[in-house]
Amino acid sequence: MTYGMIATWRMAYDGVAEMTKELQKGKDAGDALVEAIKQVEDYPFYKSVGYGGLPNEHCILEMDAAYMDGNTFDIGAVAGIQDVKNPIAVAQSLSHERFNSFLVGSGATKYAKNAGFECQNMLTERAKRLWELRMEEIQKHNLSPYDGHDTIGAVSLDIHKKMVAGTSSSGLFMKKSGRVGDSPLSGSGFYVDSEIGGATATGLGEDLMKGCLSYEIVRLMGTGLHPQQAADQAVYQFAEKLTKRKGKAGAFSLVCMNKSGEWGVATNVEFSFVVATEHEAAEIYLAYPAENQTTRIEIASKEWLAAYETRIKKPLD
Amino acid sequence: MTYGMIATWRMAYDGVAEMTKELQKGKDAGDALVEAIKQVEDYPFYKSVGYGGLPNEHCILEMDAAYMDGNTFDIGAVAGIQDVKNPIAVAQSLSHERFNSFLVGSGATKYAKNAGFECQNMLTERAKRLWELRMEEIQKHNLSPYDGHDTIGAVSLDIHKKMVAGTSSSGLFMKKSGRVGDSPLSGSGFYVDSEIGGATATGLGEDLMKGCLSYEIVRLMGTGLHPQQAADQAVYQFAEKLTKRKGKAGAFSLVCMNKSGEWGVATNVEFSFVVATEHEAAEIYLAYPAENQTTRIEIASKEWLAAYETRIKKPLD
Repeated sequence: MTYGMIATWRMAYDGVAEMTKELQKGKDAGDALVEAIKQVEDYPFYKSVGYGGLPNEHCILEMDAAYMDGNTFDIGAVAGIQDVKNPIAVAQSLSHERFNSFLVGSGATKYAKNAGFECQNMLTERAKRLWELRMEEIQKHNLSPYDGHDTIGAVSLDIHKKMVAGTSSSGLFMKKSGRVGDSPLSGSGFYVDSEIGGATATGLGEDLMKGCLSYEIVRLMGTGLHPQQAADQAVYQFAEKLTKRKGKAGAFSLVCMNKSGEWGVATNVEFSFVVATEHEAAEIYLAYPAENQTTRIEIASKEWLAAYETRIKKPLD
Repeated sequence: MTYGMIATWRMAYDGVAEMTKELQKGKDAGDALVEAIKQVEDYPFYKSVGYGGLPNEHCILEMDAAYMDGNTFDIGAVAGIQDVKNPIAVAQSLSHERFNSFLVGSGATKYAKNAGFECQNMLTERAKRLWELRMEEIQKHNLSPYDGHDTIGAVSLDIHKKMVAGTSSSGLFMKKSGRVGDSPLSGSGFYVDSEIGGATATGLGEDLMKGCLSYEIVRLMGTGLHPQQAADQAVYQFAEKLTKRKGKAGAFSLVCMNKSGEWGVATNVEFSFVVATEHEAAEIYLAYPAENQTTRIEIASKEWLAAYETRIKKPLD
């Protein structure tokens, strides 16, 4: 009767806390994951996912999402979808299709509208103002425009031994129109096999897709490694390899959980995440890269949480 | 001074034959691969790639392509691009970008136009007629509309020890608008590491992305397996696993080459491919699944080749 959920970033807390209670009662891993991610998509102050997400270079919000069923390997995904309230729900729905289960651009948006998913303007006044402020900064200081890529990624395990992985993201702030990161890409943004475990990623999508790290972590868990060992080995070895070959590696943060509810995390930057299982109440943690390709994990302090709250709601000029 | 190129389907022959001669003279693996794939994109009688490719449900030709550099892991990709003569060249160009290297839908098309890539109407009269005939068949016989998904995928190795992988496809005939298969997805449609080797896939994209088979073959070659062993192990084990979990597995065909120019292929359907290396002139082969998770490979007969030629140029009503 094991169950649990792990997800990227502090923003996942409310959904994970609520949905692990439902998992305990027998809720399906997929429905619990979708509900948890919807809460992040719906909250206007999370500026990298769903409503309130930051727009592309033309001030248009384009979103990516994916859903994978670890029993059947069925995958549904969307990229560059617009005006849809819950991209994760569209991805879940597409996962039931044998063909045409990954849709992009206007085709994805049309599918969602025709299938009756709730549509709305997803660009908030706050997101628009942040875009304007960033445009001014870029012009004034000749900055690289790209910043921010905090995908919500989650892995859930239900008492029926089903595991599911999912992601949702508005992608890189100021991205070019049509840009896609790792979030909707199987093996890179997510991967799950109910007989082993699941993993999901956040960070610089362009670099994450070079390593297929979600697949690699699941594969390593399948060889018998503890999720923490699997995450450490996959993430730090690839970050090192990429740095050697290319001179640098973008931000990589991955979380994973195995079929027993054990979990792991690895990251090359400061990274917050949330986990709850049968044995552990929902908690917000911080992770940091540590010595010898390991990860340091601590519970987020009250000060950190307060500063986060202030930062995301900071009044804008 | 090893060099070589392997690619999916008989249609790859002319490009592979010509470009391995250039590889012998020192041509870059990436430029050789792009030239080889361009020849397939440009030939009007290959109905699953580029000009002459079969359109989606609305009779619009949407194309996918990807390019990966095995030295740096740089990836460029497009999905759902329209009206662009050579999607593979756009993917190669995008691989040089640190951000925004995977573009979809109208964003991809606009990028290509603005970057000066040659644009043209890619829908031939023959492809349009095939679409009309198929629509009639579907209505008459209540058929599943989806058919045909012959991606050109190639791996090349140059005398400078650089390896590159690339794909180009018009995707599933009669696909929904915006549908994307495995071709532009790292790890699924292609993967390459110059210190190990590369692999690329063709088949039912919706199922190929469930297995990350290109990544897995490269990983297995990295453990010391011969490419043929790596391909057999990855493809047949995953096809079996998927059949067990889902009840069925779509068509999977993968080719691979290692850094020594040794190659392999595995497939669960009849599958033609082309390979040329320092030691072997360009040849068209047929591969079939055989006993005990192995692959039977034979040189394509004159009769097979003649029947192919007749089939692709068959007059239409």
